[in-house]
Amino acid sequence: MSNERLIYLPLGGAGEIGMNTYVYGWGAPGKERLILADLGVTFPDMDSSPGVDLIMADIAWLAERADRIEGIFITHAHEDHVGAVGHLFDQLNAPIYARAFTGHHARRKVEEKGHDPESVNIVPAWPEQIEAGPFKVGFAPISHSIPESSALIIDTPAGRVVHTGDFKLDETPLVGEAFDEGFWRGIGKDGVHALVCDSTNVMQPVAGRSEATVGPEIVKLVESAPGMFVATTFASNVARVKTLADAGVEAGRSVCLLGRAMRRMIEAAVLTGVVTDFPKTISPEEAEDIPRQNLMLLVTGSQGERRAASAGLSRGKYLGLELAEGDTFLFSSKTIPGNEKGVIRIVNALSEKGVDVVDDSSNLYHVSGHANRPDLERMHDILKPRMVIPMHGEHRHLREHAKLAKAKGMGSVVAVNGSMVDLTGDAPDIVEYIEAGRIYLDGKVKYGALDGIVRDRLRMAMNGHVIVSVALEDDEMVGEPWVDLMGLPEIGTSGAALSDVLEEDLSQMIGRASRNTRSDDDDLEDDIRKTVRRTSDDEIGKKPEVTVVISRLS
Amino acid sequence: MSNERLIYLPLGGAGEIGMNTYVYGWGAPGKERLILADLGVTFPDMDSSPGVDLIMADIAWLAERADRIEGIFITHAHEDHVGAVGHLFDQLNAPIYARAFTGHHARRKVEEKGHDPESVNIVPAWPEQIEAGPFKVGFAPISHSIPESSALIIDTPAGRVVHTGDFKLDETPLVGEAFDEGFWRGIGKDGVHALVCDSTNVMQPVAGRSEATVGPEIVKLVESAPGMFVATTFASNVARVKTLADAGVEAGRSVCLLGRAMRRMIEAAVLTGVVTDFPKTISPEEAEDIPRQNLMLLVTGSQGERRAASAGLSRGKYLGLELAEGDTFLFSSKTIPGNEKGVIRIVNALSEKGVDVVDDSSNLYHVSGHANRPDLERMHDILKPRMVIPMHGEHRHLREHAKLAKAKGMGSVVAVNGSMVDLTGDAPDIVEYIEAGRIYLDGKVKYGALDGIVRDRLRMAMNGHVIVSVALEDDEMVGEPWVDLMGLPEIGTSGAALSDVLEEDLSQMIGRASRNTRSDDDDLEDDIRKTVRRTSDDEIGKKPEVTVVISRLS
Repeated sequence: MSNERLIYLPLGGAGEIGMNTYVYGWGAPGKERLILADLGVTFPDMDSSPGVDLIMADIAWLAERADRIEGIFITHAHEDHVGAVGHLFDQLNAPIYARAFTGHHARRKVEEKGHDPESVNIVPAWPEQIEAGPFKVGFAPISHSIPESSALIIDTPAGRVVHTGDFKLDETPLVGEAFDEGFWRGIGKDGVHALVCDSTNVMQPVAGRSEATVGPEIVKLVESAPGMFVATTFASNVARVKTLADAGVEAGRSVCLLGRAMRRMIEAAVLTGVVTDFPKTISPEEAEDIPRQNLMLLVTGSQGERRAASAGLSRGKYLGLELAEGDTFLFSSKTIPGNEKGVIRIVNALSEKGVDVVDDSSNLYHVSGHANRPDLERMHDILKPRMVIPMHGEHRHLREHAKLAKAKGMGSVVAVNGSMVDLTGDAPDIVEYIEAGRIYLDGKVKYGALDGIVRDRLRMAMNGHVIVSVALEDDEMVGEPWVDLMGLPEIGTSGAALSDVLEEDLSQMIGRASRNTRSDDDDLEDDIRKTVRRTSDDEIGKKPEVTVVISRLS
Repeated sequence: MSNERLIYLPLGGAGEIGMNTYVYGWGAPGKERLILADLGVTFPDMDSSPGVDLIMADIAWLAERADRIEGIFITHAHEDHVGAVGHLFDQLNAPIYARAFTGHHARRKVEEKGHDPESVNIVPAWPEQIEAGPFKVGFAPISHSIPESSALIIDTPAGRVVHTGDFKLDETPLVGEAFDEGFWRGIGKDGVHALVCDSTNVMQPVAGRSEATVGPEIVKLVESAPGMFVATTFASNVARVKTLADAGVEAGRSVCLLGRAMRRMIEAAVLTGVVTDFPKTISPEEAEDIPRQNLMLLVTGSQGERRAASAGLSRGKYLGLELAEGDTFLFSSKTIPGNEKGVIRIVNALSEKGVDVVDDSSNLYHVSGHANRPDLERMHDILKPRMVIPMHGEHRHLREHAKLAKAKGMGSVVAVNGSMVDLTGDAPDIVEYIEAGRIYLDGKVKYGALDGIVRDRLRMAMNGHVIVSVALEDDEMVGEPWVDLMGLPEIGTSGAALSDVLEEDLSQMIGRASRNTRSDDDDLEDDIRKTVRRTSDDEIGKKPEVTVVISRLS
């Protein structure tokens, strides 16, 4: 018994923002009973993952130990915490636990993938605790930018672990439970062994602002707007959507929700009782008949997503509605790094329509959902944990958070994805590195980020693609080589068609090649590839990707 | 004579940041004599232009009128103003004019493309004026983030036009000429017909800060740094590089420049007399022997460029130098939108090495090179032009700048690339739209952005590429169809190899096809493409790009 241990193993979210996937275990080494905190996704981009739909943590390590998993606990309904439950459920097949609003979303995701939605257990908040093997896990309400966000209070044989999930300290969050210092002092009063803690905003030097500070500014803006008023924010930020809607009503406007995610989130919030007094909304058809100065649209697409309502409205008519000179468009949101170009594209398209855009540069119309540095320190001070394990953040955030904790005399460690940390003793100790990768969901198929598929796509995108077809009979060329180009200029510097020059050079090369080369597909392919790359480099200054098709007749 | 007119035609830079290319003309419609202000480039990205090296304005309209071009005037040596002079020189073949530092760079670019560097005329600053057909053009020193930036004073039969180039109002720029209000009052005293004016920072509500405010903060930071001190900034910001180097010397450090652009810019600045007292620097080899607390590196790559010195140092040893725990890395620069991910990648890699990174979030260690809103207003007030034509900026910037000018009673218009504006009268008037596109330089070849080449690359990157080879003899299939995959998963949802399933389905389809279809390459190709896309959609949930190679034997 004496060698039993408490382990913590991030598989996603530690060393990045997004894809939160954290494992805890208790037991003898290699026999730990396991629980999982969150199972999120992250999003692809053209730079590194073109054509990919979603990215999730490689859970191979967990899947091999599926019989040891006691439960999956979801802190809140953001995609980077819950997004993979449907896609990975069949590999884990363990009960999922969440509170009502989060569980509503998790059930839909599980069901969409053909699994029993009842695999998701809807559980009440703390002080209720779920027994999960050696763990007792409770959902402690904490504020964030989505309703019902919860920290996990994980009681273990080594002591209490507080896994914050994403959080901020908001005493007036408008929707969902307020941060309650007394409550958290109670959680900590018998000692906290480890605080595993959100790190995303550790670089922000000033304490965070409450959701309640945003409303009055928005009201002022809406009241001063002469034409239609359109606002976008994260659909899951139900408090903000409600603040915006309330401001519209206060300014005498009818409110219309545009975009599937927006409607779905508000429906879920009403259905699960998270919001009881959301103002009446009208349909896009009804909106068409409202004078524009009496209309407010709340729309999806704050991150510049091309298919969302914001982008649609910026391009032209969207569901019968069209913006015009004198309308106002508010980004009540922050632009996530990497999304700037998409957002700027929308702003300029709106500018072309004469729409006045109010972005987040004033800091008046948006507040973050994460704890800033002074807020993190306050949480440390309230809970007085033996150790702080920074989670959810890029390396720079984890490192800064660990420094902060150590400076205050607490144990800490920078544990990125794949680092198995022994939390049993007085100080955290990395005992093993697990291979922690990423899985790409691409259409209906999942594959590893390093499987070479996306690498080949990036190469075709950078270099273009030449396809060479050659037919041989008895190792002699039949006819001439045939070249197809994709993603390459037709004419090279010689003024001739690139495909003609390639065909000519290949024909000569194959004619001169030894019979040995011609009889060996690998050798011939190799020579063809080299010739194509050399000739292309001469003609167009690029070395393309090459696919060689050799047909052997007879 | 009475129908002669003054025209302004932006071909790049108006409706975007970068690619500055502006045409002015005087004469009867269709017979105007033309001059060009700047000939810049912009940079590609994976989202819209993978594999492309540089982007420049489509100058087809100008090239057709090359015999009417009197000269090309370059305001300053930033790539988005001078970058295309080498690439486009042979289509314009007009004399280029620039001051010494700018001309030094322009000459190198023209020479690299095999043209006579003497095509670039090095000219003195105002009051010197160059006669260029109906125009007299002078280079009026103005401050910016590169030495010798100049506004063009263009005297025309319709009056004086001031083309600002990029500028800020800096009375203590450290390197290059200070902004001199008296000088500009003199320029404006006999009336300015049109102010064609930088708009990039029109959204910035507070007056810009001087370059001189940065130095003292940097000195404090360098003096407090325990280990090696590394700083990156735009290589062309010679004043900043000098400020950094001076701070290093003041803190008792030896200074080493890393990165070709950094060394080249400083060499050019010294050579052209722009800087006379740049501190002595040491080579990377010498730097290896200096204790790290006595060393300062000034490096390229502030925008996260993968091949620059910053990225190299973040990954490991670079030219024999390696960063370590306790070193400090300063971004004395702003991250240009779109470059965030690359910069963050470097910051995190440095964090993994234990390096403390100081970024631009404090606003202490960087100032912009562009005029903010109050600075633009001050310039309007000093010159009192009849009209303000906003240039260099996205649509939102041009629109905001035009509003600002109109609110103060000046004529204005939002003229994006391709808008030919008649400036002759009291108010600007868009009289014609020219097709204004973009040209991609890709290896050795130039082609149009809309030529379909890059579209095909993006499609391959998003969808993958299937290559089908089929051989027929007398319209009957010989052997079986052959399928190659690139950028696609090997195994589909059926558990079989995707290529096998495709070959099987194609074989059946071709077997069932009518003889008419088999005898017609287009029909057969069409059916093959459809079958591949349908089967792939079933198997992997994606519809790939398809290249079909049909060989007809005999």
